[in-house]
Amino acid sequence: MGEVLRDSFTLPGESGYEDLTLKLAKKWGADVIRDSDGTQLSEEITNSGYGIYSTICLIRSDNAWAKQNMDKLQQNFLMSYPVVAESETVVIQPLKGYFKEQFMVNATDDPKEFWQVFDRTTEEEVPVSNWDYNKETGEVVVKNAKKWHKYTVNFLAVRLWEEISMYNHITNDWGDKEHLMAVEPRYPETQENILKWLEEWCISHPATTVVRFTSMFYNFAWFWGDDIDCRSIYSDWGSYDFTANPVALRAFEKEKGYKMTSEDFVNKGFYNQTHNAPSKKYQEWMDFVNCFVVEFGKKCIDLVHKYGKKAYVFYDDSWIGVEPYGKRFPEFGFDGLIKCVFSGFEARLCAGAQGIDTRELRLHPYLFPTGLSGEPTFAPGGNPKLDAQKFWQNVRRALLRKPVDRIGLGGYLHLVEPFPDFCDYMEKVTDEFRLLKSFHQAGEPYVIPGKVMILTAWGSLRSWTCSGHLHEHPEVDLINIIESLSGLPFEVVFKSFDDIVSEGIGADVKVIINAGVINSAWSGGDNWKRAEVVEKLTEFVANGGGFIGVNESSAAEYSSQYFQLAHILGVDKDLGTKKCLGKYAYKLQKDSFITAETKGADLPICDGIYVLGKDTTVLAEKNGTPTVTVSGFGKGRSVYLSGYRFNLENTRLLMRAILYAGQQEDAIKTYICSNPMTECAYYPGSGKLVIINNTGTEQTTTVQMENGKEVTVTLLPFDIEIQ
Amino acid sequence: MGEVLRDSFTLPGESGYEDLTLKLAKKWGADVIRDSDGTQLSEEITNSGYGIYSTICLIRSDNAWAKQNMDKLQQNFLMSYPVVAESETVVIQPLKGYFKEQFMVNATDDPKEFWQVFDRTTEEEVPVSNWDYNKETGEVVVKNAKKWHKYTVNFLAVRLWEEISMYNHITNDWGDKEHLMAVEPRYPETQENILKWLEEWCISHPATTVVRFTSMFYNFAWFWGDDIDCRSIYSDWGSYDFTANPVALRAFEKEKGYKMTSEDFVNKGFYNQTHNAPSKKYQEWMDFVNCFVVEFGKKCIDLVHKYGKKAYVFYDDSWIGVEPYGKRFPEFGFDGLIKCVFSGFEARLCAGAQGIDTRELRLHPYLFPTGLSGEPTFAPGGNPKLDAQKFWQNVRRALLRKPVDRIGLGGYLHLVEPFPDFCDYMEKVTDEFRLLKSFHQAGEPYVIPGKVMILTAWGSLRSWTCSGHLHEHPEVDLINIIESLSGLPFEVVFKSFDDIVSEGIGADVKVIINAGVINSAWSGGDNWKRAEVVEKLTEFVANGGGFIGVNESSAAEYSSQYFQLAHILGVDKDLGTKKCLGKYAYKLQKDSFITAETKGADLPICDGIYVLGKDTTVLAEKNGTPTVTVSGFGKGRSVYLSGYRFNLENTRLLMRAILYAGQQEDAIKTYICSNPMTECAYYPGSGKLVIINNTGTEQTTTVQMENGKEVTVTLLPFDIEIQ
Repeated sequence: MGEVLRDSFTLPGESGYEDLTLKLAKKWGADVIRDSDGTQLSEEITNSGYGIYSTICLIRSDNAWAKQNMDKLQQNFLMSYPVVAESETVVIQPLKGYFKEQFMVNATDDPKEFWQVFDRTTEEEVPVSNWDYNKETGEVVVKNAKKWHKYTVNFLAVRLWEEISMYNHITNDWGDKEHLMAVEPRYPETQENILKWLEEWCISHPATTVVRFTSMFYNFAWFWGDDIDCRSIYSDWGSYDFTANPVALRAFEKEKGYKMTSEDFVNKGFYNQTHNAPSKKYQEWMDFVNCFVVEFGKKCIDLVHKYGKKAYVFYDDSWIGVEPYGKRFPEFGFDGLIKCVFSGFEARLCAGAQGIDTRELRLHPYLFPTGLSGEPTFAPGGNPKLDAQKFWQNVRRALLRKPVDRIGLGGYLHLVEPFPDFCDYMEKVTDEFRLLKSFHQAGEPYVIPGKVMILTAWGSLRSWTCSGHLHEHPEVDLINIIESLSGLPFEVVFKSFDDIVSEGIGADVKVIINAGVINSAWSGGDNWKRAEVVEKLTEFVANGGGFIGVNESSAAEYSSQYFQLAHILGVDKDLGTKKCLGKYAYKLQKDSFITAETKGADLPICDGIYVLGKDTTVLAEKNGTPTVTVSGFGKGRSVYLSGYRFNLENTRLLMRAILYAGQQEDAIKTYICSNPMTECAYYPGSGKLVIINNTGTEQTTTVQMENGKEVTVTLLPFDIEIQ
Repeated sequence: MGEVLRDSFTLPGESGYEDLTLKLAKKWGADVIRDSDGTQLSEEITNSGYGIYSTICLIRSDNAWAKQNMDKLQQNFLMSYPVVAESETVVIQPLKGYFKEQFMVNATDDPKEFWQVFDRTTEEEVPVSNWDYNKETGEVVVKNAKKWHKYTVNFLAVRLWEEISMYNHITNDWGDKEHLMAVEPRYPETQENILKWLEEWCISHPATTVVRFTSMFYNFAWFWGDDIDCRSIYSDWGSYDFTANPVALRAFEKEKGYKMTSEDFVNKGFYNQTHNAPSKKYQEWMDFVNCFVVEFGKKCIDLVHKYGKKAYVFYDDSWIGVEPYGKRFPEFGFDGLIKCVFSGFEARLCAGAQGIDTRELRLHPYLFPTGLSGEPTFAPGGNPKLDAQKFWQNVRRALLRKPVDRIGLGGYLHLVEPFPDFCDYMEKVTDEFRLLKSFHQAGEPYVIPGKVMILTAWGSLRSWTCSGHLHEHPEVDLINIIESLSGLPFEVVFKSFDDIVSEGIGADVKVIINAGVINSAWSGGDNWKRAEVVEKLTEFVANGGGFIGVNESSAAEYSSQYFQLAHILGVDKDLGTKKCLGKYAYKLQKDSFITAETKGADLPICDGIYVLGKDTTVLAEKNGTPTVTVSGFGKGRSVYLSGYRFNLENTRLLMRAILYAGQQEDAIKTYICSNPMTECAYYPGSGKLVIINNTGTEQTTTVQMENGKEVTVTLLPFDIEIQ
């Protein structure tokens, strides 16, 4: 492996541990050293000849200015907790239940312009003339209320504590350390101050070669509660709540000619969760915000470039409005994108972004004493080598399919000292990474012909993600599916319902996958009530296309069928309202192409699934309900899976389902490992075959090449074999 | 026990087994002998001095007439299976998939007057001008269809085989035995023939003292399929489908001034299942049919009376339109009502009917070789005594609370001969029955003060039933609840949402129970979108009432809450669309009044249930989700149960939940068995305390009397103790 240049690695350096920093920089082949939250680089390090990354977060960097400009803090809409009317007058304390250190009521801008009061029993808005906000008491008083109805107030709140800073502060018990606040960049004064601060920063950091933005201006939505037993009131990685404020709302109305109301954000208290199908109006708002973030963001990046530094963006925390898969992303002029990854799909998320030169992964485990759920990592009892092996096993299979340019670590470097096995393993990881990268440079790996389309309400804007990490919402079928797909030899495209209606379905699409529960963005929500959607997909399958429906795919409580593609899927779901309608008594077909090899495949049940008739074949069942079925429609085929969770056997089942639906069963014969615990990629350009062991135990596997030649290898746990 | 008259028992006699018949008549204390389907009574029996019951079914009694009057058979609406349009023309065979021996297309009445064609992709009706029925081919041709949309035809079908006769014929393999047909009594000619046949029958059956109608004119809905793997297409014990036909439809329109359409019956293929919340229009139709059934039924009963016989009605099979809990039931002039019973709630159903002198239970097991699922009963391997013990155990606890007048058996008497232990046990059962009846005659048993209201979309019309037997839909929470209630010391009333809106909630109501899944008749469906419903119930609880919500009680996908009474219940449900909204981290409270005694109580989970905040107390949980919670609202209390299944421990839990919600915890101290496997009733009129063992094992239990005295007894399996 010595031929490959030992670079493309970002090391977290640490002042006071200069020897260690330089030793590991060499061992792991670093070409760049970075600071982290809570660490600094000494001059000895910054002058050691390595590239230097420095992290900045523009909206919380100048807290002195923020304190002097409390009228220019970020805001958002909140819905008060409901209050039941016991008489004709209802008194509501808007902030009751919310964390007062995070929020205060915006009493400056006229409540009557922005707030709304709703009778949530009837879902009717209370006329503005029937309520008032009393600044003295901090209460909203509703008059002419209907007795025993439930009332809520949508109100504007000012945020007093930037969320990431708040989380770190409270989690790490930082005591009286200053609370950082997030300034709203829509005010010209804020922009001026940010640019001034940034310029001064560039001047005062001559050693920095790359400025890493964390990220741009708006954090994902995170509302905290007063009650420590209900601390997280709302948390969504993709939600634009923190972009709402009087300036933005007025600018939107001016630009679009119509108004965003508080209820467009509050949405009956559901807010606009990424997991739910978005409204057109909310999508317009997102686009409006994206436009602003790109516009002002570009000014910041231009400034960084002016000082001869590169500008990278960290795709987490305050990433709202950045939208790396949005159409304007290249306009920022970023040089690089950095993504922290636990999973393969996150590696693909980074690898697939366009409009930047450098894609970099921040690997786990972070060099912290404990992991996400408080378990020891770099601390007594921890096994960071094993952690690294498991994370790398997830990420590596994705990197076989699509490369990134760099990898790196973050955290406190000195913590690795008691773990020499981790240090040795990271050396192996960095070398493996560089080798795989070199194969990609000689040409893309072999993929099975034809595209696999993931159909969601978001389309390409949410390529390779379902909002957040897999462990946060492991019950979301699609996140599990894209995790499987991240390492499979298919070309994957992400499309929305609007896309297929306006553009049609490309002739190169073999199989469409739609997965999720009813009303989710992933299944599609009310898009399934659109006849043109059903028409396009029915035509696609009738003409020979493949459709894979998972869980409540195509579901809408509409007309005679619950699955709007029941005629294609051959199954439908009974919510209990078809209790007296007889169900077809299917017989299980135990042997099939799809279920071969995967006796251990285990899919979650979808309650109430039933088979429409004899033209549907059930290939697997659980507790008496079908979990895998196939059906035909016209020249095409469908596969129904009752749910999906990522694991290696299910991944094999999914691959076979795609091949079956796409009528490409023969493709399984070439460049596919015989052992589902292993995977491979063949790079025609470099003539290399890479085989990986995705488990912690030894595995033997055989790969058949295009020329018929068979390669059989035995791999050590987590190991890789190059042929 | 010798003082009680040994009567009130109906014995199935059998010709050829005269000695056995008379011997068992004496042993079991029969005063009446009956025939059964497939048995006859000889003159020796009919002349033996016993009362004689004879069964008749008017609508299938004169098959010769039916064959000569095929234009006067019963009809109903069916929805064809959907056909996907592959071009602008769609051809649909309406009957495809249906059992041709049961149905034929009604091609006589103008399809354009009664049928409808729907685009089920868009749920739009196809204009009548765009489709035609071709009598020659039996096909509906739709023109100007939208490609890839799904089309169905609602059409009138004539029924060629009366369903009970069809079921018995096919199940018992009766070969070429004639298929009986059901005639439609709305035609004057049919009525004339029925009355003529009935008069002749009365004249030719002088020994008959009681005519048992089976039942009146319309069977419950039962559609069969061609495919033996999908034989039951639709089956609902309470549905009025078989009452639709051109004569009735036109009469309805004339009377009401508006029309019932085919879609009012077909309802997108859901039909009008009793388990689903009914529409107002469908309820109007039911009332219209009931009016006719009572009107013509009375003529038949009057005729029977004219011949000095009594008229009883069997509350099963063709019971549609009879409605023993309808306002017109007394108008029939029936002398008796007979109900076949597996469960306690069915005994209460019979016991509670008004407008008749005699209420009679037909006990299980029937004297047949096999039971419902083909298991041996009166056949080698069977244990009919044990079966009888189990059924009697269900029924007896209900009879402790509310009496009926008679019990009896049905079937082939000679089958009991090899089972002398069964014969001895039945002697005990009949004596127990007569004794309990005698206690009731001296006055009602003690009940805990205040009423328990069951709130459903049906109200009192479906008192003590949820459509069919418990074993048919054991997943219906309410049927399990009423089975528990059937033997508990509460006065139970059944009310509809319309009732509470129009009449208010009676001051004597202590606790309201609402139970079921969303959109079910039991939970209430769209009634929960009515503000006046929420107002009434909120006021009721605020003023001190108790509310028990089970499973998806008060659920409607409406406004900010899923449970429209979330403010009362203190819990709500997340369908997955509140994924990012934080949930309160409750702490389980292990000791409580409600969960005392019932460590083994086990309720089904309701997925997605979450606690609203600290004012809700979780008393039990399963797999990390709450199963029993309590909350307070105003002066009242609520209890939430995630689901309910009948068993003795859950029954105790429910009783305690009712006492807690009604703020009557102290009532547990008096006339309640200390051992939940036993129950008791105290009859102040006769001064008798009856204690029953509801299990097959010996039980010891203590009852505290009003005067503080304690009674402790040990009961043999299934036994009874009188003090």
